[in-house]
Amino acid sequence: MTTSLQHIGFLGFDVFGTVVDWRSGVARAARPFLERYGIDVDPFDFADEWRSLYQPAMQAVRSGERPWVRLDVLQRENLETVLARHGADFGAEFGAIEGADLADLNRAWERLDPWPDAVEGLTRLKRRFPIGALSNSHIAGMLYLSRFGGLPWDAILGAEIARSYKPQPQAYLKSAEAIGLPPHEVALVAAHNDDLQAARACGFRTVFVRRPREHGPKQSTDLVPEHDWDAVADSLIELADLLGCPQLSR
Amino acid sequence: MTTSLQHIGFLGFDVFGTVVDWRSGVARAARPFLERYGIDVDPFDFADEWRSLYQPAMQAVRSGERPWVRLDVLQRENLETVLARHGADFGAEFGAIEGADLADLNRAWERLDPWPDAVEGLTRLKRRFPIGALSNSHIAGMLYLSRFGGLPWDAILGAEIARSYKPQPQAYLKSAEAIGLPPHEVALVAAHNDDLQAARACGFRTVFVRRPREHGPKQSTDLVPEHDWDAVADSLIELADLLGCPQLSR
Repeated sequence: MTTSLQHIGFLGFDVFGTVVDWRSGVARAARPFLERYGIDVDPFDFADEWRSLYQPAMQAVRSGERPWVRLDVLQRENLETVLARHGADFGAEFGAIEGADLADLNRAWERLDPWPDAVEGLTRLKRRFPIGALSNSHIAGMLYLSRFGGLPWDAILGAEIARSYKPQPQAYLKSAEAIGLPPHEVALVAAHNDDLQAARACGFRTVFVRRPREHGPKQSTDLVPEHDWDAVADSLIELADLLGCPQLSR
Repeated sequence: MTTSLQHIGFLGFDVFGTVVDWRSGVARAARPFLERYGIDVDPFDFADEWRSLYQPAMQAVRSGERPWVRLDVLQRENLETVLARHGADFGAEFGAIEGADLADLNRAWERLDPWPDAVEGLTRLKRRFPIGALSNSHIAGMLYLSRFGGLPWDAILGAEIARSYKPQPQAYLKSAEAIGLPPHEVALVAAHNDDLQAARACGFRTVFVRRPREHGPKQSTDLVPEHDWDAVADSLIELADLLGCPQLSR
């Protein structure tokens, strides 16, 4: 294990992209919806478009332009924006879209498959370290997502606990405070260099996990670690190996 | 299953007394401390005294007399109060008490054994319902306590999430809000009639679990359900039976 990770007391995980495959899961949920309402867009492109509104929506909260709201509220607004772009008019033409269907599609973010290594990796890591979600998602979203995929968190931290979205410092610092640890005893595990950079600026330890298919076959960002992170792994199983976590008995 | 529990979407648990045996655990941790510092009090009496300051300390926060503080802060103040009653003077006479020993004893509340039925009962209940701590403890306290005893929560809710101590309504209502459910779809499971009464007043469903030894062999309170709670059980295993949760495979 690298020296800097020897005294870690908690592993906090970015979740969308790092632990679960949001793109496939959102496309899977969108496909029957798009077909039912005759909206002509590829489900993967739809997932990408929806996701592309994620950062700008949070930015309005980060900047103080609007007061704190949970991620499910932002996701729902973004969903309506994307549908409107593709011709949906909730007032008139697309009055046919039922509210219950929209609400259900918005919960696609709670029904995403973990990457194939994630459950085994987390289960092994949990034997040695307390583990938790350190996501921009809300508590309910993480709760249902974790039950869907069997993610064995000890705690759900992150944006709703901090009432602040990553990469704002409060999102990391209040998460560390909530588990009673100084920042240098907490590591963020993430597939995104900018998330790790913000965590490091708060004093966190940092682990980069390569997820080269998060954005599909044409991904061009976050393919490599862009700084000297404390550890780099290709999967959470590899991270469990690196941190000396025992194998699971079969 | 009683009709009123058919549409429950979440089971929230009181923890101290309902899920874990705080009295034995605190006495176990106190015994060597009291011996080391020559403080002449029975460890079980010490545990009872420490616990007796728990409600008055929270009351100062509930009433607005002092701003919100986490339970570990209150427990530490109460610990010093009890020690002082038994002759400890942290300034002079008992200057011998090391801060690290005090901090360690204060964490006795994170090292309490679950009641013998608790882990099996929770594990079965979790197969069918999302489950969470709905305690007056703080997030870190619940996290470490749960790891100590193997309590498989989906989420940690309660006082720190709500910044409000039970039985204040906000403690229940903000916990339900955090998991995205209306109060009538949440049940509180508790060994304390007053906790259940406050939860019911907020619209929660209610489950009374008998814990006749929480306060030791002479317990005189909460021996019976004092209202027509939605369910009553003698253990969390019995509750899992009542709610139709499958047995664990051996």
